[in-house]
Amino acid sequence: MPMRSAEIIAIGSELLLGGRLDTNSLLLTEQLASCGIEVRFKSVVGDEERDIASALRAACQRADVVVLTGGLGPTKDDRTRSAVAHVTERPLRRSKVAAEAIRRRLAAWGRVPSPAQLRQGLIPSGAEVLFNPVGTAPGFALTWNGSFVAALPGVPSEAEHMFAVALSPWLAAKRVKNDSRGCIERRTLHTFGIIESEVDQRLKGLAPADGKIRLGLLVSPLGVTISVMVCGDGATADAKLLEPLTQTIRRRLGKYIYAEGVETMEEVVGRLLTRHHLTVAVAESCTGGLIGHRLTQVPGSSNYFDRGIICYSNEAKQDLLGVPTSSLRRHGAVSMETAAAMAKGVRLRSRTDIGLSVTGIAGPGGGTDRKPVGLVYVGLDAGRATGLRSLRTSRVTTQTFHFHGDRQSIKLKASQAALDMLRRWLVKR
Amino acid sequence: MPMRSAEIIAIGSELLLGGRLDTNSLLLTEQLASCGIEVRFKSVVGDEERDIASALRAACQRADVVVLTGGLGPTKDDRTRSAVAHVTERPLRRSKVAAEAIRRRLAAWGRVPSPAQLRQGLIPSGAEVLFNPVGTAPGFALTWNGSFVAALPGVPSEAEHMFAVALSPWLAAKRVKNDSRGCIERRTLHTFGIIESEVDQRLKGLAPADGKIRLGLLVSPLGVTISVMVCGDGATADAKLLEPLTQTIRRRLGKYIYAEGVETMEEVVGRLLTRHHLTVAVAESCTGGLIGHRLTQVPGSSNYFDRGIICYSNEAKQDLLGVPTSSLRRHGAVSMETAAAMAKGVRLRSRTDIGLSVTGIAGPGGGTDRKPVGLVYVGLDAGRATGLRSLRTSRVTTQTFHFHGDRQSIKLKASQAALDMLRRWLVKR
Repeated sequence: MPMRSAEIIAIGSELLLGGRLDTNSLLLTEQLASCGIEVRFKSVVGDEERDIASALRAACQRADVVVLTGGLGPTKDDRTRSAVAHVTERPLRRSKVAAEAIRRRLAAWGRVPSPAQLRQGLIPSGAEVLFNPVGTAPGFALTWNGSFVAALPGVPSEAEHMFAVALSPWLAAKRVKNDSRGCIERRTLHTFGIIESEVDQRLKGLAPADGKIRLGLLVSPLGVTISVMVCGDGATADAKLLEPLTQTIRRRLGKYIYAEGVETMEEVVGRLLTRHHLTVAVAESCTGGLIGHRLTQVPGSSNYFDRGIICYSNEAKQDLLGVPTSSLRRHGAVSMETAAAMAKGVRLRSRTDIGLSVTGIAGPGGGTDRKPVGLVYVGLDAGRATGLRSLRTSRVTTQTFHFHGDRQSIKLKASQAALDMLRRWLVKR
Repeated sequence: MPMRSAEIIAIGSELLLGGRLDTNSLLLTEQLASCGIEVRFKSVVGDEERDIASALRAACQRADVVVLTGGLGPTKDDRTRSAVAHVTERPLRRSKVAAEAIRRRLAAWGRVPSPAQLRQGLIPSGAEVLFNPVGTAPGFALTWNGSFVAALPGVPSEAEHMFAVALSPWLAAKRVKNDSRGCIERRTLHTFGIIESEVDQRLKGLAPADGKIRLGLLVSPLGVTISVMVCGDGATADAKLLEPLTQTIRRRLGKYIYAEGVETMEEVVGRLLTRHHLTVAVAESCTGGLIGHRLTQVPGSSNYFDRGIICYSNEAKQDLLGVPTSSLRRHGAVSMETAAAMAKGVRLRSRTDIGLSVTGIAGPGGGTDRKPVGLVYVGLDAGRATGLRSLRTSRVTTQTFHFHGDRQSIKLKASQAALDMLRRWLVKR
């Protein structure tokens, strides 16, 4: 059974409401990709058994590997087990090994399983039990109609662990027999500061009509992400296309590329600060703490991030950063001069190597003709080390941006612009 | 043609990578619900025409309304038009009205359409053109095999506007003829501070076996969200069940419910602060700016949010908040005493009504046996107004939490715990 394509089915009526970060399928997509399997479809269904069954049937028709997540819990809403049993005509049987695993897991927490929790040990007959190294609900795997079907819990950390422990080795072993006609390798490159049509223009001619190479662009407030996929019949030969192609993209987009793969802007900045043994402090007005939050998402960030000042009011800008009242009065809180004074103030007062600042109008209110919503100033003060074009305030570099979008996306873009300014400065060192 | 159930198909290879907030389908799900149509399935497919076609065929078999988003742009990757044309056997024709709309839109920006942009005016023959009030790509709608199919752009704001202007009135009009056997109304209630099994226990008996009422629980770092759905044959009679049911849930979960519907914790806190004419300042250690970021996501937050101090280093805690060195030495940076001193320090120095603080260990490093990863202290100082159980430091209330999860989710939980403590205090006033 060659395994090339996969479908992920996420189960849960609440997921249909949307508005959540789809962590689960991100992790599974990466894990499947590392086994050489391309996720071609994703589906979301509610808790209705007939809907789960319908999604499973459709998926088995078009994908070699079907991974279901969710609906394995102890409540009546958890109907993945019975839906799979029904579709595959393998009645649910009480699995002794599964029940024992549930008992052991709960015993470790000093508890005994309830009848509802023991129902989680019901597994379609003949299916293999997948142990849950993190939670109580076991998963299972079976083969039906030529497709490999695995049911995993809906909690991302549980699904990730179960996949890594129980499925990855097995699927990776299958890879050898894979004839790899699907997408065999993929790279992603993340850019900031360049618009989509300009990226498209610069990448012209890179994806010939034979369909072996696919380029995709995704626009978000964090920038334009390029994904490069190489597909083909002869796995090894085609995979060799990827590296020179990625090199060409790097050359054509240069400084706009801030990261590749799963690395984030804040991780790149953290890596560069660590490499250069530099510390940073931030002064945020319109971003309201988002830059600090992003920098501190990275484990170990306390080694280079000292503090952040969220100076929403003018008083806070004066008290905490020493922005001169005269400057605030003359140029306003949203001005190049204030951005420069904020960056300098936070660097001097925190005694860090670098001070980074943002001031702007996130909207929807507060805009004027001269200073519209989306106007953002970023300031970078690296003391004696600054080498970029210096402006009025000595040694501080500032940049002006005009962003579009709602409050949330203007905040995101402003935080990205500030971190990118810091990244570029660090790269040039 | 009765319209009860819908499927949303999101198109774009990049979407298969996951890790993005699914704003688009959140908005569409709400818009469809307001027309009395329940989203029963969601699918994500790449840019391959055959995959789009396969998803469309499956969707038309199981849903009355199919909404496709994305793949309408000017590049070669945009294959929604041709996939729909192929499946429905309605060849693409150049639509004069669509081309004219594209020209007008670009003229407003002082530009003329490129041949690629004019390709966006190709529409399956006989389909209705949906004008795009925000961007250039027009959408279209047609009926095929008993299903109503609409193709909208992938950019959320464009899809939302197009739906509101072109589809909502039409679908809402259909509602009258609807026999409403699907889910007819839905409420969501958001809780924090109570675990899923306890919520499940408290809601026992509320969803009888006749299936008219469905309850769903969704666990995330922000808490447990309950969705209540009423389904049935006689729309009006059954809809009346919803309000008393919601009342019962409110009674059974009481103070744990922090919001209903689409309102967020930060919006609730903002609303309460505004009502009581109170201002707040925050002092954040392990949350790194996330509380400030969340508070400032709300438009108008500058009226009650003065400043935030992200004090990652001990020096910052001393310099900016006056946390005594002796206290830091004796109790440590992560302690009830430090949390209290931070809350008091930020309130006094910012001259706000309330000071809110968080200190803890977000991990993965930095934990010890006595102070493990996930230990978080929250402090609230409301000056003379504090009425809760006061601890050692006068007038400051503190709470201790032990959170599980990775760095990101511990930060989220800690920010939610702090905002919830503030919310409960404001509610009690």
